[in-house]
Amino acid sequence: MTRSSHTSLRGGPEFDAVRALLARWGDAARDVGDDAAVLELPRGDSLVASVDATIEQHHFRQGWLTPREIGYRAAVAAVSDLAAMAATPRAMLVALALPDHWRRDIDAIADGLGEAALEYAIPIVGGNITAASELSLTLTVLGTARDAVRRAGLGAGDSLWVTGMLGGPGAALRALVNGSDPAPDHRERFARPRARVHEARWLAAEGVTAGIDVSDGLASDLAQLAAASGVVIEVELERLPLARGVTAEQALESGEEYELIVGSRGDLDVAAFRERFGIPLTRIGRAHRGSADVVLTRAGARVANPPGYDHLSR
Amino acid sequence: MTRSSHTSLRGGPEFDAVRALLARWGDAARDVGDDAAVLELPRGDSLVASVDATIEQHHFRQGWLTPREIGYRAAVAAVSDLAAMAATPRAMLVALALPDHWRRDIDAIADGLGEAALEYAIPIVGGNITAASELSLTLTVLGTARDAVRRAGLGAGDSLWVTGMLGGPGAALRALVNGSDPAPDHRERFARPRARVHEARWLAAEGVTAGIDVSDGLASDLAQLAAASGVVIEVELERLPLARGVTAEQALESGEEYELIVGSRGDLDVAAFRERFGIPLTRIGRAHRGSADVVLTRAGARVANPPGYDHLSR
Repeated sequence: MTRSSHTSLRGGPEFDAVRALLARWGDAARDVGDDAAVLELPRGDSLVASVDATIEQHHFRQGWLTPREIGYRAAVAAVSDLAAMAATPRAMLVALALPDHWRRDIDAIADGLGEAALEYAIPIVGGNITAASELSLTLTVLGTARDAVRRAGLGAGDSLWVTGMLGGPGAALRALVNGSDPAPDHRERFARPRARVHEARWLAAEGVTAGIDVSDGLASDLAQLAAASGVVIEVELERLPLARGVTAEQALESGEEYELIVGSRGDLDVAAFRERFGIPLTRIGRAHRGSADVVLTRAGARVANPPGYDHLSR
Repeated sequence: MTRSSHTSLRGGPEFDAVRALLARWGDAARDVGDDAAVLELPRGDSLVASVDATIEQHHFRQGWLTPREIGYRAAVAAVSDLAAMAATPRAMLVALALPDHWRRDIDAIADGLGEAALEYAIPIVGGNITAASELSLTLTVLGTARDAVRRAGLGAGDSLWVTGMLGGPGAALRALVNGSDPAPDHRERFARPRARVHEARWLAAEGVTAGIDVSDGLASDLAQLAAASGVVIEVELERLPLARGVTAEQALESGEEYELIVGSRGDLDVAAFRERFGIPLTRIGRAHRGSADVVLTRAGARVANPPGYDHLSR
């Protein structure tokens, strides 16, 4: 953990902030005394690495989340990218840009980061703290995998599956944007998301062909999967596992779910999955030969894609 | 490479920006189509990881550097943390927070990042781009090392060495802060720093006992080394290798040098070093038993530490 070091503009309090963070993190952090962290990885595994940023105003507004939730949620969002690859979390690097008006919240933000680090067994091994005009948390997550699950593996005929129930974060966000209180269950899904790390490894062991996490929204993330794999994905809307009070159309657009979408050649044991993880695993459609696209059907008939949906014209 | 994904607040242009960056980077980037990058590392090596942030206003001001220099310099600063550990660069993750008023400069910033990625053989393997109110570049660098050089290895009796000439970046920064034009050679050291990756590996092969890069300034970074190793470091000011027109006192405070400080039990072959790398390697002092501190001498007599110097009271 270093403070950012730039001669003329440097301030005093950053070293103090680093010490405060390390004290706060306790067992959630380790080995932060050098210019870089040194990690031993299991032999034969690949390294899996991702970075994710959460920025005030652009990703959340003050008052929507507690500082602890901001920290927790930022870490879970980053860890979810490891889950999407079925990687085992190994280490996290935390880059904090901290405006003066957030300084009194640093302990709570750190607690949220530390809680996620302990919960997902992903120790904070390094980082950077700088002054800034807006709060941002940029989290690098490092994991390992023997056989990472990629976006590009989906084949024609594969079934598509999704974990959990969809639509809660989107419903919470609609309420917040409208200035009303979200339903507690929707807010919980928004403020305290789960990264499906263990679920992903179970699914990888079952031989899934491709995977992605639901971060932009089901429709958008399915489009990414379709594009990477070069297939048409057909989704039967009546199959979508919906959170209470949410329509299929709303669920398609609900982002920051951090549920997993996977493809499989054969069947998956949904009962065993629910028994093990306490959430459903639902077959929502399948992949077909054709140029990359997502097709939505209801009762066998095609319906229009959501308004915001980009037909991979890019 | 993903754009940051947050439902209600997301904008359209981020996907376009990602595509533009990837096109721009060409061979400097690879393997950015998944939720995370997958990397194969040499067996038996440790992973070395560090994150470094550069933020508008707090680390530089618009007009001091060209957008290309901002990108290049941010990458070199991050790579220098790998050099400090004598690690071999392997991969870089780029998190960009991009305000509207910087959008027209994204190509030039990307070119600077790409130039450094190619120069240091550290391909960009992933990243994140988000809207923001101020420009920030948060770079995660991943390297590998068989035996990483740490801060904590310095022993009583070891000699202290520094690469290159000190004081240029500090002189440039003083001029810029005062609104005058820096001397071209000073500006070059400020705007186009070098990470001493190859020098570090040469020094590691010579069996150096500890190391750190000069990012906060020689006095401050020596203090870090003294604290980590639990020794007194004595520096003979008349030995400091000074950039043209710079005093020893100024050199002590000049940050963002990205030169290396190393300790060694025995002598180092300064002629071979200069022959190989075209820069000097200079013995500047030695370590003594005692409680962690930095002591400055001139002609054998102790002189006061610089005003800003923190006597490790922390």
